[in-house]
Amino acid sequence: MDKNIITQLEQIIGKDGVLHTPEDLAVYGYDGTFEEHRPDVIALPRNTEQVSQVVILAARERVPVVTRGMGSGLAAASVPFSGGITLSMTRMNRILEIDEVNATARVETGVVTADLQTAVEKLGLFYPPDPSSIKHSTIGGNIACNAGGPRCLKYGVTGDYVLGLTVVLADGRILHSGGKLIKDVVGYDLNALFTGSEGTLGIITEAILRLIAKPKVARTALVEYPTLADASRTVNAILSAGIVPATIELMDETAVACIEEAMNLGLPLDVEATLLIETDGMDEDSVLREIEAIAAICCECGARQVRVAKDEAERSSLWKARRSVSPALARKSPNKLGEDITVPRSAIPEAIRQLKAVSTKYGLPIVIFGHAGDGNLHPNILFDKRDPEQWKKVEQMVAEEFEIALRLGGTLSGEHGVGALKRPYMEQALGPVSIDIQKRIKAALDPLNILNPGKVFPD
Amino acid sequence: MDKNIITQLEQIIGKDGVLHTPEDLAVYGYDGTFEEHRPDVIALPRNTEQVSQVVILAARERVPVVTRGMGSGLAAASVPFSGGITLSMTRMNRILEIDEVNATARVETGVVTADLQTAVEKLGLFYPPDPSSIKHSTIGGNIACNAGGPRCLKYGVTGDYVLGLTVVLADGRILHSGGKLIKDVVGYDLNALFTGSEGTLGIITEAILRLIAKPKVARTALVEYPTLADASRTVNAILSAGIVPATIELMDETAVACIEEAMNLGLPLDVEATLLIETDGMDEDSVLREIEAIAAICCECGARQVRVAKDEAERSSLWKARRSVSPALARKSPNKLGEDITVPRSAIPEAIRQLKAVSTKYGLPIVIFGHAGDGNLHPNILFDKRDPEQWKKVEQMVAEEFEIALRLGGTLSGEHGVGALKRPYMEQALGPVSIDIQKRIKAALDPLNILNPGKVFPD
Repeated sequence: MDKNIITQLEQIIGKDGVLHTPEDLAVYGYDGTFEEHRPDVIALPRNTEQVSQVVILAARERVPVVTRGMGSGLAAASVPFSGGITLSMTRMNRILEIDEVNATARVETGVVTADLQTAVEKLGLFYPPDPSSIKHSTIGGNIACNAGGPRCLKYGVTGDYVLGLTVVLADGRILHSGGKLIKDVVGYDLNALFTGSEGTLGIITEAILRLIAKPKVARTALVEYPTLADASRTVNAILSAGIVPATIELMDETAVACIEEAMNLGLPLDVEATLLIETDGMDEDSVLREIEAIAAICCECGARQVRVAKDEAERSSLWKARRSVSPALARKSPNKLGEDITVPRSAIPEAIRQLKAVSTKYGLPIVIFGHAGDGNLHPNILFDKRDPEQWKKVEQMVAEEFEIALRLGGTLSGEHGVGALKRPYMEQALGPVSIDIQKRIKAALDPLNILNPGKVFPD
Repeated sequence: MDKNIITQLEQIIGKDGVLHTPEDLAVYGYDGTFEEHRPDVIALPRNTEQVSQVVILAARERVPVVTRGMGSGLAAASVPFSGGITLSMTRMNRILEIDEVNATARVETGVVTADLQTAVEKLGLFYPPDPSSIKHSTIGGNIACNAGGPRCLKYGVTGDYVLGLTVVLADGRILHSGGKLIKDVVGYDLNALFTGSEGTLGIITEAILRLIAKPKVARTALVEYPTLADASRTVNAILSAGIVPATIELMDETAVACIEEAMNLGLPLDVEATLLIETDGMDEDSVLREIEAIAAICCECGARQVRVAKDEAERSSLWKARRSVSPALARKSPNKLGEDITVPRSAIPEAIRQLKAVSTKYGLPIVIFGHAGDGNLHPNILFDKRDPEQWKKVEQMVAEEFEIALRLGGTLSGEHGVGALKRPYMEQALGPVSIDIQKRIKAALDPLNILNPGKVFPD
């Protein structure tokens, strides 16, 4: 990279905010995938004005700007394949305001999601979105990918909590959208346009987020099913009864077996599926009645056993099981590739049947878990990346996973995003008209194509 | 209009689908505002393909296309000020599918909202958005304006129920976005972009809508407050307690007086405000406990009386009162102009104080009611349009209403849209950067500016 650009960056941010040693470049070239590419320089701005100055410089010099939170993304959206400036938002991590009356938080987008949750929960408030990366991912990354999580069944995804944004545009101008408003139909919905745009339309530096009152009570049940079809039927039966649990998490037999092998929690090894269901609310009686009604529905739908946690310790151990899926898989094989397909809820059993057939066809295990209430499944292929034969198979298997989702009326991603990895499947998923419209929007907002180039859209 | 265009339209839709007598042109030149302008011709397509052909013709001939549902809009968004083709969607009113397992409906967008609600409720399902125009407005109009309603406090606005759209673009191409999917983060959120775009980006011909289970029980309370400040305080106290009622509707003393004068329902005439609060759910006990908890909070916050409806007849009479506001105002004065500002909830008392001051300043009554839980207020100016002095005052008063909203961190519209009427205030509300970005999106999607030209954005 031109020395002159580094000097200018140092003038904007200060020397301590610009990194370019080989070690730094290596560290900022990764995310949560197998992809890697080094940026030319890393900028660590402290405020929106500095971000704006960096983008003006980048536009003048025609250098790509790739924004990054904590690098926990699962689609290589923040891997800087074209080099250029990586803009790390981690120093912009202040909670600027928690407004208890309006139930809103204003934050810099480098704040870690769990840190915001802890801060608002101290005040009896609640920020529901709970991606698995919650303890290290940032609000900005969550917004850029419209992150989900188990609780999204009842509470909605990240985008449902975005009331306002501060965005640095591709020419350095600063846009403010929305505000502390629940309803706002003035002009196009720019909050929604930037949410999920994966850094391709602008750099989100601040957000106003909607909060709700913190639920006071939760009840959790682990439900065992001899057949996966019955587990899936239960999901629809619960929702049809008008009950919306906080979570309905599905784990298939392989997922449960992996956890049990790793953790010895006494999980059943002879069932096709388990559901982890949680209800929550403000009123103990109502929450209890809800979990009881759910237990009855589970039994009607063919559950073998419903184990409602008797106390917080047992509840915590059930969740520990669910959260241990990924580490447990890591013990089982050197590598795993977890996808993020969604299908209409009714198609879950067929999706799982077809995913298992892919596993059989290629001779590599696919472990399935996910947010069944939302139709969002994470099939995880277990393999050894050092074996090029296996890696080739994995690439073919992923393509078949996406084909299954699309054939069943689903799509490529429920909460991870498209990034670089799913670009080849975009045309198949959305069709040429949708892609063309989206590319036009991208070109209208970033005519020089400097913001996260080469992401989301096929070439 | 060129005779040739009418002939071509007749070839596309058939003679019975093309209207152009002076009477027809007069009838299709209005919406729910005081504005009026005749189109050159009216097209009544029967399917998406016909809409596409009409738009291709319009693009070729450089003729504006203004889409309209039932003409109940309150911002003149469907008044064809530049003439051209008015595309009436009323013949595309079929419910194409109700999917009970996935809880979705697929509809043509000319379907009347209440008709959809009736159809899904027969199956135990529920489509929550309930604009006051529900009995005659269409789903397409609701989506194009992102309509709200009383129940949106608990259930969200129209846009929260849009899972998929079929849209005819400005060049006649047909776009499909979304699907029967609760979670979908593949590419930009086109559902959200077209929702609320008021016919300026494309013509929405079909929609896939999310449904939920129909609540089985509702409890309703009318609460009387000596002071408006206490009524407002109650809203925040209820929500802070983690209770989300289906509705919290506010009526000020003038609104209540107007209703009582018209209907003799025994409403209090000596209070500053009343709240109409409804809770609903699946479980009688829980709903009852919720309304009791709310009643206790109301009393703590200074309510003089909480009247919980004892039966469905009493509940129905309370809602009759709320729904009678507009007709009651019509009895009171020859004309009314109802606005639709939103403010952060905490600013409601100050907003109402300042709105009353505007009323005093100009000597015309402003009646205030609205969806207090969402910070969405409808100040209605009562006047006589035949008096040019009064009309001039009304225009100034509306400008001051918007200034109040903006000063308090609010905006111009919570559920009616911008249309033609609020364009002059857009720059003040959103700032030049936001307007520029939105105009760029408009130009990218409709480069010939044939779709509802002259709406939403200032010149």
